[in-house]
Amino acid sequence: MVKVQFLPVNKTVEVPRGKSILEAARIAGVQIESTCGGKGTCGKCKVAKRSANSKDATTQWVLACQYFLQEETVVFLDEKKEVSQRKTSLDQIKKIILEPSIKKYVLQVPKPSLENPVPDWERLEALLPDSKITFRRSLAVSLPRILRENNHEVTVVMDSMVPIAIEPGDTSNRCFGLAIDIGTTTIVAHLIDLIGGQLISSRGMTNPQNTFGADVISRITHASQGPSQLEELQKRVIGGLNTLISELSEVNAVASEEIYQAVVVGNTTMSHLFLGIDPTYLAPAPFTPVFQQEVEVEAKELGLAMLSTGKVLVLPNVAGYVGSDTVGVMVSAEVNSLEGINLIIDIGTNGEIILVGTGKILTCSTAAGPAFEGAEIKFGMRASGGAIEEVRITDDVQLEIIAGDKARGICGSGLIDAVAEMVRVGIIDPSGRFQLKADQLKKLPPLIASRVRSSSSGQAEFVLVWAKDTVIGEDIVLTQKDIRELQLAKGAIAAGTKILLKEMGVKFTQLNKVMLAGAFGNFIKKESALGMGLLPPIPIKDIITIGNAASEGAKMVLLSAKERIRAVELAKTAEHIELSNKKGFQDEFIKSLSLGINF
Amino acid sequence: MVKVQFLPVNKTVEVPRGKSILEAARIAGVQIESTCGGKGTCGKCKVAKRSANSKDATTQWVLACQYFLQEETVVFLDEKKEVSQRKTSLDQIKKIILEPSIKKYVLQVPKPSLENPVPDWERLEALLPDSKITFRRSLAVSLPRILRENNHEVTVVMDSMVPIAIEPGDTSNRCFGLAIDIGTTTIVAHLIDLIGGQLISSRGMTNPQNTFGADVISRITHASQGPSQLEELQKRVIGGLNTLISELSEVNAVASEEIYQAVVVGNTTMSHLFLGIDPTYLAPAPFTPVFQQEVEVEAKELGLAMLSTGKVLVLPNVAGYVGSDTVGVMVSAEVNSLEGINLIIDIGTNGEIILVGTGKILTCSTAAGPAFEGAEIKFGMRASGGAIEEVRITDDVQLEIIAGDKARGICGSGLIDAVAEMVRVGIIDPSGRFQLKADQLKKLPPLIASRVRSSSSGQAEFVLVWAKDTVIGEDIVLTQKDIRELQLAKGAIAAGTKILLKEMGVKFTQLNKVMLAGAFGNFIKKESALGMGLLPPIPIKDIITIGNAASEGAKMVLLSAKERIRAVELAKTAEHIELSNKKGFQDEFIKSLSLGINF
Repeated sequence: MVKVQFLPVNKTVEVPRGKSILEAARIAGVQIESTCGGKGTCGKCKVAKRSANSKDATTQWVLACQYFLQEETVVFLDEKKEVSQRKTSLDQIKKIILEPSIKKYVLQVPKPSLENPVPDWERLEALLPDSKITFRRSLAVSLPRILRENNHEVTVVMDSMVPIAIEPGDTSNRCFGLAIDIGTTTIVAHLIDLIGGQLISSRGMTNPQNTFGADVISRITHASQGPSQLEELQKRVIGGLNTLISELSEVNAVASEEIYQAVVVGNTTMSHLFLGIDPTYLAPAPFTPVFQQEVEVEAKELGLAMLSTGKVLVLPNVAGYVGSDTVGVMVSAEVNSLEGINLIIDIGTNGEIILVGTGKILTCSTAAGPAFEGAEIKFGMRASGGAIEEVRITDDVQLEIIAGDKARGICGSGLIDAVAEMVRVGIIDPSGRFQLKADQLKKLPPLIASRVRSSSSGQAEFVLVWAKDTVIGEDIVLTQKDIRELQLAKGAIAAGTKILLKEMGVKFTQLNKVMLAGAFGNFIKKESALGMGLLPPIPIKDIITIGNAASEGAKMVLLSAKERIRAVELAKTAEHIELSNKKGFQDEFIKSLSLGINF
Repeated sequence: MVKVQFLPVNKTVEVPRGKSILEAARIAGVQIESTCGGKGTCGKCKVAKRSANSKDATTQWVLACQYFLQEETVVFLDEKKEVSQRKTSLDQIKKIILEPSIKKYVLQVPKPSLENPVPDWERLEALLPDSKITFRRSLAVSLPRILRENNHEVTVVMDSMVPIAIEPGDTSNRCFGLAIDIGTTTIVAHLIDLIGGQLISSRGMTNPQNTFGADVISRITHASQGPSQLEELQKRVIGGLNTLISELSEVNAVASEEIYQAVVVGNTTMSHLFLGIDPTYLAPAPFTPVFQQEVEVEAKELGLAMLSTGKVLVLPNVAGYVGSDTVGVMVSAEVNSLEGINLIIDIGTNGEIILVGTGKILTCSTAAGPAFEGAEIKFGMRASGGAIEEVRITDDVQLEIIAGDKARGICGSGLIDAVAEMVRVGIIDPSGRFQLKADQLKKLPPLIASRVRSSSSGQAEFVLVWAKDTVIGEDIVLTQKDIRELQLAKGAIAAGTKILLKEMGVKFTQLNKVMLAGAFGNFIKKESALGMGLLPPIPIKDIITIGNAASEGAKMVLLSAKERIRAVELAKTAEHIELSNKKGFQDEFIKSLSLGINF
């Protein structure tokens, strides 16, 4: 017997070895269309299958009636054109109708005759649904050869009404797209199967622009020096993405020409740089972007490693510092159908805040700084192997370290935890100042007190890990300056939240949910975030994480042309509140620096 | 006093030296708009002017009120937006409304503010007539810099509704286009001023593809060998055109970025090769082109030396062997408004024939071969310096030679003349055979008889010029084979004409006019063409030449978007009669080989 799992319906059956997938489907009560009765002639029972045993097995397209099971197999059905995407954090299953803008048409083009010597392009065009398509030189170049070498059978790939490829024979079983998230710190590419609607795999790396500075302002400063510096930054990010795409292509046996569309999200500066558009005037007031609508360009114009005539769609921005990544979050969180008043916080290098309710969508961007991503912190690091991600202070310090026993540094969630704990036990006071007086130290457990010291430069610091327990061979400490960095970041997010609440005329007690987006949001310890007043003090059960919502939004747009329309609408509906321009913001900001609840 | 000529109204006046153009215009009774009363501030009196004395003087744009006349000057007015184009051959002046698809908009873009931080692109877009234009990455790249370095004044260049350039400051006084005619033998580029509607100048050269063969079939054969051979042919023609365009740019002080559009005509094979599209299946029956609609591509896609984002428009074809050059002829001859039944013959390397009447447009292409262009003829050459262009046989041979005393060879019109005369005096009989018998030679004047001889290879020939009177130092002769080549060409044209007349169901006596297009058509001696039966025997006054009508059609499309629509309509309306497919064609062809009137 062999096991067969059918996805996305998630039914598993055991059938005798040698049964066809089609027979197994019948046994499982799963419907696979077939009009030839299993003779292998109608081609309607095409399914994607993959071995269940090896993790990196490639997905193959087979006729369910002609593929005879020899080992444990996973079968992906697409006949319902419906994808389930489990959002554990939202505790609900979202269904989006699979309706990508990329469609394939397999055509048997009639041959020309002396009586009717219709041009190749027109004979082909006549078979397409709207029988009138844009003539594209680049596709016509080798059309006559492709037709005649394949007995006039071709597959036309259309993006909306524009043909983007003409492929020899029937290629309708292979169709891929990319969802790309360009963060200031990290870039990620997701390879998506547009037929089944599944994520095939993802790859990420540090944004290679980071050699020009960790934050957007330093990137803008570099780009503003001239066209070649701008081009340099563009080449960096595209080069990085191409590395990711090549890896995805190779591992999954997908040719770059089979990747027909890319949907990109990123903050406004990243979008400008990705497109090679001068971001200079995003830096000084009035923070003017060059564009904020959605932008579509051919891949070859950017040099992205996919079908050269395929489209790259950059989702629209809301304003200078509220980018398409935030629009991606809004799409993914389906903000247009949320109940009540909801707050969404996406903490990256900047912190974008969305407040939805009373028929409005308010957004702002705070200069949270990269502290939450580990930058500007003495022993800060990204949430990768060796990072301290949880801190608990009892009679001594207890740590959780990512993938290992020995610490290398501390990431954002560890930092919040550590500082919350340090306030709680009295190592620092709510103003952030170290409590160094003898009587203050005496109140601490002895092992903890022994960790509080002054550095050689006279700065107070707290030893989280002694050198012997680290990978790096020196004490990992949190300095007074580190605490101040965190306070600035925390203050910015909290003050931004308060301004948005005020702008909408609601109180935090009216909030239905607070949703945390982004990698950081997924790992933050809610108690600590609440304890230091980073989040408004609502019941902890109403604080939920929604994953990498920006990427998720890009994926949704890739899988459904309707989501693209929604993205455009949300970007238009959303109002941007420019904090630097807002009366009372500085005041709120200073009040919010305190490491306690001050909503 | 200095003379000033105003064009296109063609009024000339003499005014005292130092008067302004505006004052001269008033004296001449010519209207030039001016709202500031000649203070040089309104900018409305901008005109193009050129010195009348030096042939290659460049055209300059000046304010008529601020330019004070020092020498004889030609002034081009454009305020009426009407261009006169004298068609001497048609004995009429055609007026087309100057309405190019290229338009310039000078915009004073508002600066952004913190209250209204609208993106650069959107502030600009809002000022354009339809306030919604396609976002173009390539134009946005340096937009912020251009705006801020020019006090937010820019000129947007639009091709229909698509922006193709954003230029710093006000550039509304400079706007150029190209009309390009790609012949199998010769390529020509015309630089056109899209503001005044004038032809600035033209350049031509031998099609650099000719190293791969003189005719379309040998080019197709080369291209069909593979993508690199196809690319080779494309590069040749584009390289040649770029040489012409560079010359035009340099001589006329026009930057390539100021050339915003190109309209191209050529036969179907040339159009395919120009666009790099595989023409292989044009050669064998059923002679299938890849496309026949109009094609528009960005200049950068082809590498044409003009604005990279400017459009290159290739006019539509009618069929495999009736190309956009013929559509250009139809546009130029305004076939949709001709009275009665009219025949148009465009003789190039192929001979395209158009018969218009009874509500129809019939076209065909004949394999006339390159004989009329001097190819395949022993001493054949193009109509350039040293070519015999007219031949008269009295008691000896009298010649007209282009630009010189000594002959180098014979061009198409000279060939027709020579053969017509040879038949008339009896050197050859109407079947084309040399009359070599003694009694036949005796009837000829002695000096003429002495020119009839057999070559060393035994082939009969007629000496047109003795070696001493040539540049090349050998006798220039017409051989029996040359006569046969001409007969084949003549037979093809005449038979094609007869088939079209039969197809329409009319007789040649019903013809209103016969129009001869193309360089060859302009120089042909009508009597000779009639005498040998190349043209139907209608009164000589009804045979008119219409110049390089294919180029003319391209120019008209460049100057008026309406003519582009007309071109598309004419290409659709025109019916193509495939001669090789037509019963009776071979019969008519053989009958028409005779060098006499056989309509």
